[in-house]
Amino acid sequence: MTLSGGYYNAGGGTSLQRKQGIEDSKENWNNYLKAVGQGFEDDMMRNTIVEHGAEDYEWLANDVGVNFLEVQMIGNEMAMKDYATPAARSHLTVEKSGVGLSRPLFKKADELGTKFVFNITAQNLITDKSNRVVGVHTNKGNFRGKNVIVATAGYSRNKDLLKRFAPDFAVGESYGSIRQNGDGIIMGAEVGAKLTDMWMPIASSMGAQSGDNVCIGPICAAWKYPYIWVGEDGKRHFREDMYFESGSKHIASLPGGYVWLVFDQRMAEEDPGAFSAPAVSPGLKREVEDGYFKKADTIVDLANQINLDPDVLTATIDKWNSDSENGKDTEYGRTNVLGALKAPFYAAKMAPSTPDTAGGLTINSQTQVLDNRNEVIPGLYAAGSTTGGWRGMTYPGCGMGITNAIVFGRLAGAEAAKSTSDVSTGASQHVNA
Amino acid sequence: MTLSGGYYNAGGGTSLQRKQGIEDSKENWNNYLKAVGQGFEDDMMRNTIVEHGAEDYEWLANDVGVNFLEVQMIGNEMAMKDYATPAARSHLTVEKSGVGLSRPLFKKADELGTKFVFNITAQNLITDKSNRVVGVHTNKGNFRGKNVIVATAGYSRNKDLLKRFAPDFAVGESYGSIRQNGDGIIMGAEVGAKLTDMWMPIASSMGAQSGDNVCIGPICAAWKYPYIWVGEDGKRHFREDMYFESGSKHIASLPGGYVWLVFDQRMAEEDPGAFSAPAVSPGLKREVEDGYFKKADTIVDLANQINLDPDVLTATIDKWNSDSENGKDTEYGRTNVLGALKAPFYAAKMAPSTPDTAGGLTINSQTQVLDNRNEVIPGLYAAGSTTGGWRGMTYPGCGMGITNAIVFGRLAGAEAAKSTSDVSTGASQHVNA
Repeated sequence: MTLSGGYYNAGGGTSLQRKQGIEDSKENWNNYLKAVGQGFEDDMMRNTIVEHGAEDYEWLANDVGVNFLEVQMIGNEMAMKDYATPAARSHLTVEKSGVGLSRPLFKKADELGTKFVFNITAQNLITDKSNRVVGVHTNKGNFRGKNVIVATAGYSRNKDLLKRFAPDFAVGESYGSIRQNGDGIIMGAEVGAKLTDMWMPIASSMGAQSGDNVCIGPICAAWKYPYIWVGEDGKRHFREDMYFESGSKHIASLPGGYVWLVFDQRMAEEDPGAFSAPAVSPGLKREVEDGYFKKADTIVDLANQINLDPDVLTATIDKWNSDSENGKDTEYGRTNVLGALKAPFYAAKMAPSTPDTAGGLTINSQTQVLDNRNEVIPGLYAAGSTTGGWRGMTYPGCGMGITNAIVFGRLAGAEAAKSTSDVSTGASQHVNA
Repeated sequence: MTLSGGYYNAGGGTSLQRKQGIEDSKENWNNYLKAVGQGFEDDMMRNTIVEHGAEDYEWLANDVGVNFLEVQMIGNEMAMKDYATPAARSHLTVEKSGVGLSRPLFKKADELGTKFVFNITAQNLITDKSNRVVGVHTNKGNFRGKNVIVATAGYSRNKDLLKRFAPDFAVGESYGSIRQNGDGIIMGAEVGAKLTDMWMPIASSMGAQSGDNVCIGPICAAWKYPYIWVGEDGKRHFREDMYFESGSKHIASLPGGYVWLVFDQRMAEEDPGAFSAPAVSPGLKREVEDGYFKKADTIVDLANQINLDPDVLTATIDKWNSDSENGKDTEYGRTNVLGALKAPFYAAKMAPSTPDTAGGLTINSQTQVLDNRNEVIPGLYAAGSTTGGWRGMTYPGCGMGITNAIVFGRLAGAEAAKSTSDVSTGASQHVNA
């Protein structure tokens, strides 16, 4: 959550929406989510998010103490205006960062007496003879409980799972947390959980590895200085100034599944921040020294460093430069940030990347994990990006990953606690879905 | 298998390769498979295919009685020449169709006394208390056995599974058998099987639905008469004459995940066979009458029929036509089959399509199905497209799906029979992987 942009996404009439004069309703929000989901989202999860999203915003703002600054429209709302009246729903924290959410949430949980155990790795779920989950086996011993909630985010840092289920993202690196290894998904599958939407990224963007564990997700369409993308063949293949979800898919369609992002000194010196979080070094010096980025005084030298045909790359850049000087991309009709590339040149390998995956365990409306017969696995609950079904074909907009975690996380806590007390009084609440 | 092209893919020196003077070795074939697999294939499965592929060719030719005509090079061999010496490996049957394989295989099995039960649907695997598979529950009662082999192909006709694991192919229809519903994969998952490579198509092509259950997979790059692909926005987006695996991915990258294939009377009347198997009607009359294909005397009428902006589609076709007359695609640099489109116009919705999926259950070298802890599920074996891991990033070439089915199908039969006799003598051969 600390790597997030600090947004919580909610519609249907939050107090902040009303304060800013934004008209919205649960039905309108639901229609928007249906439009971007295109039937690839789970109906129950979409309806649950709509039912609880605004209420949970008030809980965050009033009970938890999250400070919200304003609500912005930064999703696909305008593109979907035929399906739902556009409404701003991305609620930005004052901190403009995930810590604006994680700090008050931690503080609140701490005040309520939650016991935290840090620097510990869960390894397996413990089941009894009837396959009921009764605890977790960790590298620091076993923890037993009436119920277990898994909420370990997704698996964007697990290359094996990416190769098996989301190959586009196995080429490069995720720019999300290095802890997103899919532990909860694997542990759930081991006790028979049904996996769903395993192909799905939280948001399909692109990243260029800039350090051992650090990646950047440059949103090229918003750049100030010229750049191009070339494939393994040294050629451009499409206009680069497209929406990042589309750009990511286009890159995946090329042989090798990546491009070389070629730019020049101006981006490196005057706007390295455009490479997005985490921060890169001034002038990109460290990235070049470490070998992640390449720098060269001539196109031929650059081509040799990145194993492209020097003649082809020279022709590609010459064509781009002359087109730019004439004000028209005659090859692919790109309209944004035309301009000739000048020495010294830079190149960075760029591949599809996502802050995290968005598929995983299948849950019911009480957040109980289901097996491949769609029956409840007793004692096991899940929430957040460890589950699948909350997102559809297209990412709804900034903050929706957080909303999914908050809405189903709250439900999981309440349901697991309820089930515990029921069990202790002898009345089981486990119902087959 | 009856919908296949009638190829069996094998290298390493089959008798037919030698007869045609083709030099190849197991090592060379393995290097080729590694090059196209790009690490997305399972090492054990690749090695097993290389170890048994040529031997199983001789078994097909000599013991089963399959008649092979010739061996052809119709994969990525030339493109991978830096990694492996190109060698023809697609062994074509005399029948040039899957019946060239399925008929003699059925005949041989029949002669050996195999009991076939047709028109029956397997519904669940039956397990005993220790989770050992001991039979199959069907719509015609239970069938019990010491071991069960699942070989129900993939799931290219199961929209729910496609949405969960291979969304590009959920937009249109598969041109494979309508029986490819993933039954074996679902039944395996229900007893805890580990799923792998669920995103993977046998071959990523494209199809245009032309009847209730019939699809066509046109290989446009080989067409004789002009055509273009336009997106939901009525515009072209890339050169259409690319290799079908790449074309399929490009189409998936567009909003909606499909294109309109626009062509004219010449394709309809003079070359409808180019729409590929199964056969379409003369002049595409039935496809138009049934509403799957659209036909119009004007571009505006065509645009209205397929809900595109008539002005945009008119501009797109005008530009294509003038470019074609000048002999140069100034938008995307396409070089094949340039030519002006003339009234009457046709349009067919075209989306990524595959003969079948290529992911599923995880097996060990004895074809035993593994669970999510990588332990053997006793009594359960699998082979063919019901399993994952046999194909890597790129389809190796015509016939490889059949080879996978033959190699692991033979192994599964032998292993399951061996295990049965061992069990009957009291010595279990089940070993954890």
